[in-house]
Amino acid sequence: MKLLKQLCEIHAPSGEEYRMTEFLLKYIKKEKKKWKTEPEIFYGEEFQDCIVLKFGKPRTAIFAHIDSIGFTVRYQNQLLPIGSPDAEIGTLLVGEDSMGPIECSLSFDNENHAFYNFGRQIDRGTSLTYKIDFRDSKSFIQTPYLDNRLGVYVALQVAETLKDGVIVFSCWEEHGGGSVPYLAKYIYENWKVKQALIADITWVSDGVEAGKGVAISMRDRNLPRRKFVNQLIEIARKRKQKFQLEVEGMGSSDGRELQVSPYPFDWCFVGAPQQNPHTPDEKVHKDDIKSMISLYEVLMKDL
Amino acid sequence: MKLLKQLCEIHAPSGEEYRMTEFLLKYIKKEKKKWKTEPEIFYGEEFQDCIVLKFGKPRTAIFAHIDSIGFTVRYQNQLLPIGSPDAEIGTLLVGEDSMGPIECSLSFDNENHAFYNFGRQIDRGTSLTYKIDFRDSKSFIQTPYLDNRLGVYVALQVAETLKDGVIVFSCWEEHGGGSVPYLAKYIYENWKVKQALIADITWVSDGVEAGKGVAISMRDRNLPRRKFVNQLIEIARKRKQKFQLEVEGMGSSDGRELQVSPYPFDWCFVGAPQQNPHTPDEKVHKDDIKSMISLYEVLMKDL
Amino acid sequence: MKLLKQLCEIHAPSGEEYRMTEFLLKYIKKEKKKWKTEPEIFYGEEFQDCIVLKFGKPRTAIFAHIDSIGFTVRYQNQLLPIGSPDAEIGTLLVGEDSMGPIECSLSFDNENHAFYNFGRQIDRGTSLTYKIDFRDSKSFIQTPYLDNRLGVYVALQVAETLKDGVIVFSCWEEHGGGSVPYLAKYIYENWKVKQALIADITWVSDGVEAGKGVAISMRDRNLPRRKFVNQLIEIARKRKQKFQLEVEGMGSSDGRELQVSPYPFDWCFVGAPQQNPHTPDEKVHKDDIKSMISLYEVLMKDL
Repeated sequence: MKLLKQLCEIHAPSGEEYRMTEFLLKYIKKEKKKWKTEPEIFYGEEFQDCIVLKFGKPRTAIFAHIDSIGFTVRYQNQLLPIGSPDAEIGTLLVGEDSMGPIECSLSFDNENHAFYNFGRQIDRGTSLTYKIDFRDSKSFIQTPYLDNRLGVYVALQVAETLKDGVIVFSCWEEHGGGSVPYLAKYIYENWKVKQALIADITWVSDGVEAGKGVAISMRDRNLPRRKFVNQLIEIARKRKQKFQLEVEGMGSSDGRELQVSPYPFDWCFVGAPQQNPHTPDEKVHKDDIKSMISLYEVLMKDL
Repeated sequence: MKLLKQLCEIHAPSGEEYRMTEFLLKYIKKEKKKWKTEPEIFYGEEFQDCIVLKFGKPRTAIFAHIDSIGFTVRYQNQLLPIGSPDAEIGTLLVGEDSMGPIECSLSFDNENHAFYNFGRQIDRGTSLTYKIDFRDSKSFIQTPYLDNRLGVYVALQVAETLKDGVIVFSCWEEHGGGSVPYLAKYIYENWKVKQALIADITWVSDGVEAGKGVAISMRDRNLPRRKFVNQLIEIARKRKQKFQLEVEGMGSSDGRELQVSPYPFDWCFVGAPQQNPHTPDEKVHKDDIKSMISLYEVLMKDL
Repeated sequence: MKLLKQLCEIHAPSGEEYRMTEFLLKYIKKEKKKWKTEPEIFYGEEFQDCIVLKFGKPRTAIFAHIDSIGFTVRYQNQLLPIGSPDAEIGTLLVGEDSMGPIECSLSFDNENHAFYNFGRQIDRGTSLTYKIDFRDSKSFIQTPYLDNRLGVYVALQVAETLKDGVIVFSCWEEHGGGSVPYLAKYIYENWKVKQALIADITWVSDGVEAGKGVAISMRDRNLPRRKFVNQLIEIARKRKQKFQLEVEGMGSSDGRELQVSPYPFDWCFVGAPQQNPHTPDEKVHKDDIKSMISLYEVLMKDL
């Protein structure tokens, strides 16, 4: 879990993913020699801060977003949300501006507007993220930003043995999107890939429990094509994978942007459930991490 | 009206349009020999569950969505809406799961959450639609799903005599869209078609009455380019068509996705008005169906 | 300021930009001979009512939207908003229908629905805009539609000395967009341009004052890529430009559509702040207009 901890500690809210990009490029360039198949790596200005890995002859792509929620410093101590953070008064936030490193605490006024408490003014536009407190117990990992550092981690585990497939590290997922449209265009136009799995983190709910396996989400706010979802479920059953079926009316993912892209993508959200989403206390059962990696390995083979 | 009744009876909520696709393909392949111009048929994996018909040298496309509203079964008897159904307690819903056919009734809890009453648990993710009660009276057709089986029906009537044009059967219109982007791309890039008529059903309103003719919608939540709308109105007047002008602030259609597509589409919603939209009692005046077919025939010639 | 007044007086709400298009084409064709670099002009059916000017070897595009907010006449004296107008009872609205020119006044019923007072019925679908009252004082310009006639004006001033760059006049910005997707596609696919500056008008706020210089908006509802925004700020500082930093949680612009386009655009909103946005009394400090022109000149050179 050392890698997962490292990923969580990188400051990379939506729009400022470049630190994560740098870490991943360094990691991938070093590790790929040990992987079963060495992928081609696509990145640079045409990809903004995204990375695409191409293994063999791909049929299916894994999308893992590398951005996180957080806050932007405004003026008069005000904070604006990046994505939809859910944190209490006193939560520790970290960042850096022209004066140096920052560790401040979150507060709210009577109208529930967020602001910061700190000994000095912070530069306008500075981004702040939750201070990492990585808790590794017998059964659970608890830390800010399992959403979606865990999706990135799973993708990197699957990369080790992947023969044919694409892994996409996308940006801005937590705040309006914007990278998936050109990433979808690239992988469809170059390799005709139009099957996608969204490696992201979902919620423990009335119907999905911690420790009962990765969730295959049959729908959220968006409706993936049922034929594709059924195909996934059939593979998971045939290959005796541990999994749960989620059926949600809310929430969205990189899948939404694939759905409305000008390419006929089929997609499905497949991810471990967590408690306390978007808080500094996101918590995932270790068995569900294993189950997520296992199901991705199987799906990338059989789809 | 036998064909319209058949179309209404097909279970095809957003995301599960494939039964309608199969019916239409069979119907078109059989009937097209009798049509004035035999169209080329485009379908298959690159089109998901959509169908495109190309007649002669097309200048204008008709878009008719083939999905309907409905519900998805969650857990603990909960139902999630597909699109925005508007139905009362006791409404009969039908579908099928691994245990067999389902006919259950709709209910609501105190917080207005939908659930089902049925003798057994229904599989997670099962979709349910209104039970069809097709009422054919002297002046009116009343049944669930005139929106948009009537649009599909009109397109199929127009197909019989169409010389030049495209007919597009699209998916997901009721729930966030997602097929129009690639359909627009296909017809623009291959045939330079950038004029579109949205064959869908609108509302009887303070300014639009049943029996007074098809509505040309000058705007809804979206604003089509006025120059194009004016051109339609001029043709309708010159050709002495019976029609009404609608001006709305709400509601949307496949036109929205054409508007924001990366192609310079002009579009206009042209459809019969109905009472009780999205309920099991949608009701359209027969004169307005005739008027809709007639106006489409004229527009496809003169545009 | 004669040109700015002329621009404000043109009736061109979203969806009906063609009068502005005609004015601009005439103006540009006449004036371009005096400009340092003569641009190529792209317009016509493939561009709907938009215009693209290409100067030299472009690296960066200026986007200035040419539409305005307003109202659409419905029936029974009702008005529907185009974009989000903010006006009081008694505001004078102008337009034209089949019976001739219109000058009517705005009213509201108890439920805050807009309607018009006029001696006769106005044709369905007629668009109305604020009557222009152009006020030119020592320090301020005050008039309806500084948003975005001032952005258009600035772009035309910058055009006079521009060597390399694109100027895009876009449509529908105030009401859902729809032209930026194909404009972005055009300039990226033909000239690989993927840097964009949004020449639009922002708000005077708690942190941005009138007369203190043009605002560089670090974010609004959308998050531009931070690396690009930082590059702009660095250039502005190095070149000793007068400017202010805005950090907002609301508001949007043509930048949103660039962000979600299937091209890897970097964008930033750079515009003068105004008081009373979307009212008939929009007001901008003259120093901020100068500062906006100056910063655009510098950015188009150095980016």
